[in-house]
Amino acid sequence: MYKRSLILLFTAFLLTYSFSQAPDAHTLFIKNIYEESLTARNTNTVLQQLCQKFPRRLSGSNGLEDAVQWTKSLMEGYDFDNVFLQEVMVPHWERGEKESAYFYNSKGKKEHLSILALGRSIATPVAGISAQIIQVGSLQEIAQLGKEKIQGKIVYINKPFEQHFIRTFEGYTETVKIRTRGPSEAAKYGAVACVIRSVGTADDDYAHTGSLLYAANVPQIPAAALSVKSAKKLESALQHNPQSQLYLKINSKTLPDKMSHNVIGEIKGSEKPEKIIVIGGHLDAWDVGQGAHDDGAGCMQSVMALRMLQQMGYKPNNTLRVVLFTNEENGTKGGKKYAEYAFKNKEDHIFALESDAGAFTPRAIGINGPDSLVQKVKNWIKYFPDFTIDKIIKGKGGSDVEPLHKEMDTPVGSLMPDSQRYFDFHHTHADVFEAVNARELEMGTASMASFIYLVDQLGF
Amino acid sequence: MYKRSLILLFTAFLLTYSFSQAPDAHTLFIKNIYEESLTARNTNTVLQQLCQKFPRRLSGSNGLEDAVQWTKSLMEGYDFDNVFLQEVMVPHWERGEKESAYFYNSKGKKEHLSILALGRSIATPVAGISAQIIQVGSLQEIAQLGKEKIQGKIVYINKPFEQHFIRTFEGYTETVKIRTRGPSEAAKYGAVACVIRSVGTADDDYAHTGSLLYAANVPQIPAAALSVKSAKKLESALQHNPQSQLYLKINSKTLPDKMSHNVIGEIKGSEKPEKIIVIGGHLDAWDVGQGAHDDGAGCMQSVMALRMLQQMGYKPNNTLRVVLFTNEENGTKGGKKYAEYAFKNKEDHIFALESDAGAFTPRAIGINGPDSLVQKVKNWIKYFPDFTIDKIIKGKGGSDVEPLHKEMDTPVGSLMPDSQRYFDFHHTHADVFEAVNARELEMGTASMASFIYLVDQLGF
Repeated sequence: MYKRSLILLFTAFLLTYSFSQAPDAHTLFIKNIYEESLTARNTNTVLQQLCQKFPRRLSGSNGLEDAVQWTKSLMEGYDFDNVFLQEVMVPHWERGEKESAYFYNSKGKKEHLSILALGRSIATPVAGISAQIIQVGSLQEIAQLGKEKIQGKIVYINKPFEQHFIRTFEGYTETVKIRTRGPSEAAKYGAVACVIRSVGTADDDYAHTGSLLYAANVPQIPAAALSVKSAKKLESALQHNPQSQLYLKINSKTLPDKMSHNVIGEIKGSEKPEKIIVIGGHLDAWDVGQGAHDDGAGCMQSVMALRMLQQMGYKPNNTLRVVLFTNEENGTKGGKKYAEYAFKNKEDHIFALESDAGAFTPRAIGINGPDSLVQKVKNWIKYFPDFTIDKIIKGKGGSDVEPLHKEMDTPVGSLMPDSQRYFDFHHTHADVFEAVNARELEMGTASMASFIYLVDQLGF
Repeated sequence: MYKRSLILLFTAFLLTYSFSQAPDAHTLFIKNIYEESLTARNTNTVLQQLCQKFPRRLSGSNGLEDAVQWTKSLMEGYDFDNVFLQEVMVPHWERGEKESAYFYNSKGKKEHLSILALGRSIATPVAGISAQIIQVGSLQEIAQLGKEKIQGKIVYINKPFEQHFIRTFEGYTETVKIRTRGPSEAAKYGAVACVIRSVGTADDDYAHTGSLLYAANVPQIPAAALSVKSAKKLESALQHNPQSQLYLKINSKTLPDKMSHNVIGEIKGSEKPEKIIVIGGHLDAWDVGQGAHDDGAGCMQSVMALRMLQQMGYKPNNTLRVVLFTNEENGTKGGKKYAEYAFKNKEDHIFALESDAGAFTPRAIGINGPDSLVQKVKNWIKYFPDFTIDKIIKGKGGSDVEPLHKEMDTPVGSLMPDSQRYFDFHHTHADVFEAVNARELEMGTASMASFIYLVDQLGF
């Protein structure tokens, strides 16, 4: 009842004001986007469905392709003007049977560790690997120890998350090198396997997976991440017995590449249908938890931002397009392919905005574009209610929209939610629907809808 | 190691720069407050102790007085210059044995509801109360129905939380009237009891307690809150059978007032020891959960803000004082008594800052003081790192520092964290240490330490 009367009110409002560029109209429209989102909680409803129906959406999995079909149907059900798929070949890595690791403590008792193989890791032999552990605190230390100390051992990179950064993404960028580059760095000096302390902010027992990058011309070795609690347990064991051995078993396999899809839905522009404004997130997720924050939330926020504008009777000047990218996690093939198609088809993109930093209260929008544009857009902050988007800053798009910037110089951007909790959940079994707060999620939807509304109204 | 060298670095820094008022020194000092807090996580450590040792801290309870002694010892252990208690008489209400409520569904099956008696509620008779339910959506509707429809029944106020406000505190203020005034409003027209839908933002099964206010000259009736899920269950039952009866049993009692204490610790000012800057929270909590967000967090943030400044070698100009107020939840006797003592002892308070809005990422500081002061202080925003305190605004102190403003015109203020999740936990069994994110909590400590540092340095 409330919703219906709101929509009627706004349709009347639109007809009267014809979306003049008066600040009052924009401010009022955006206020109502937030109120409607917080009241109806529709993003929360569809995110729950996505997470519960298709919790596992790693590239190559049936779960991902089922989610592709489901999100396509969802947008078709909303009567978007066009809903279609884009073919994308993606890597197909599987974890296989659950990995395991243990050591014997000083009393001879077997201590199991909470562990996840890193994405792309090769398997251990079927019997597993047992070897002495050599603990290091950094990549540099591996090189310093050299072949003499490393050869034949399992390198354990025990580097805590760089907590002192206020934005956890900066701490992540600093710390994640041990995950991406650690295994090959260890292999260079003859390590037989590599385990790392999880790149996560919480002091808990969830291991964090994520991609490693095998360097060319270096033997590939199995690699996994320990939960922070398990990392501390192992650290303490090594203090008692520096000769401790670790048993590690990983059952992964890499299969031939497989066909996946970007899922696209759009509402055609009434004045300049050839001009495109993109919002999106990535539909694939690591094969643990439900990919709720990373990035089911970004996908559902993008779909529901468009849905909300549609329901409010808004007729865009330009074409508004949702893109749910495939394969962000272990390849970024979806984002790259999208930019390729856009280039090949000479599509005219005004702007692309991504949500891939968790379903937390939005605080800023980061823009990667010319300084003059960023300066202009900074003034739009006046249209946002207090305690929603606090600032619009020079920043980056996410990894799925950046290829569009590289390929065609399209300005791109990202929704920047509060970052304190993101790396508690990132790439873990804890990244489930229940870890998402409905109001925070909806604030993200409203922020995206509001921002693309402004781009559509005021131009870029 | 890291901490020690940081402290030494800053001591050296202090000696060199003697805290000149150059913005660079303040900016750098504040940056280091945040970094140190996020790295050491000391607030998180003591909050865990408080919550686990003294989970139940309602006024009149032994838990509260044990927490008084423990926090006193904690501050004595930190060698604060003065640590002392202030006597405060507080109300003593006890929930007694767990309350219960049920109805019979259309198939004759007994359906239990998740329920909590409201604070100050009288008990039902020992056998409980059974009566027909009359559902209303607002206080106004009670008056409209009048004695004819209400007499002898249990009034069920089924009003959802006002979700459309961006700051949930505004939604709370709108909605909480059903809790504070609903029972007496129902009693005016002859209701035998009153149940309300919980004043909370989450769609879950936790009931939210909190104080009711019995009106003078109106019979006192028992009153309780249903969880949102139970509220919906009852709503649905009433659709099938509007004649449904509710059984309600509440076992509370009100005992004679009891002696409690405000806990105070201070570091004396080196230049103007007679001038006092207060930070604080309230030590009492509802008798469910652990009072982690409300307000163990505010207490531990205040203590650790002072502790951090001390550990960084900071010598304040004015006296910095932590006050852990008693009895905020059902009486505000601690805050009122503190202001009384201050007035009687002619204490000179420059400013009092409260943290009582949950351990979430801080976003603003609200100041209740002269406009000229607020204007001046708004400029301090430049000293705060991005994504910490975004704005300093005209606002209010919390309920424990407002009496100081009323009594002596002292400028007061409150830490304003992101509010989206607060009323998911507020006054429920879910308000436990595990619901607090360590980084968000520490950001609050750092924000408080930074702000009182600026008040101390730049004056008010």
